[in-house]
Amino acid sequence: MIARLNDAEITAALPDVPGWTRNGDGIERQYRFADFVTAFAFMSRVALLAEKADHHPEWSNVYNKVDVRLTTHDAGGLSARDFALAKAIDG
Amino acid sequence: MIARLNDAEITAALPDVPGWTRNGDGIERQYRFADFVTAFAFMSRVALLAEKADHHPEWSNVYNKVDVRLTTHDAGGLSARDFALAKAIDG
Repeated sequence: MIARLNDAEITAALPDVPGWTRNGDGIERQYRFADFVTAFAFMSRVALLAEKADHHPEWSNVYNKVDVRLTTHDAGGLSARDFALAKAIDG
Repeated sequence: MIARLNDAEITAALPDVPGWTRNGDGIERQYRFADFVTAFAFMSRVALLAEKADHHPEWSNVYNKVDVRLTTHDAGGLSARDFALAKAIDG
């Protein structure tokens, strides 16, 4: 079982992932790129990071835009895994 | 300007893309795979097909599921491009 972060822990963790905002049980960020090729290159990089972390995003893509949502179903909310993956994505 | 298909043309074209259903101005299909790696491998193949066709899907992924929607914004609805890409994806 992965520990679910409480509100105070989430509030404390958010400044470490600038650009991400909390939305209910998840954190979300939208990325915009020059075109589809650049957007999908980003997605390929994130896919490798996600598989390595064994933690996968809920995400969508329309041409040059990628919307990423991170949440931890096994924790029933946000966990440290979400913030770690968000940092890795932006790292 | 890309020609928008009318309802009769869409109805005639749908049997050529089994598994796809019309939803308003688009056609949609959900794919399920064994895991994330297989799902993203599929997405990578679709990304190449889309870029080659210069026609890009609206799509989302959650772990082993990929939802694909095809529509032609420049036509204000469905065009032959959507059915051609659907066939390429399933080919």
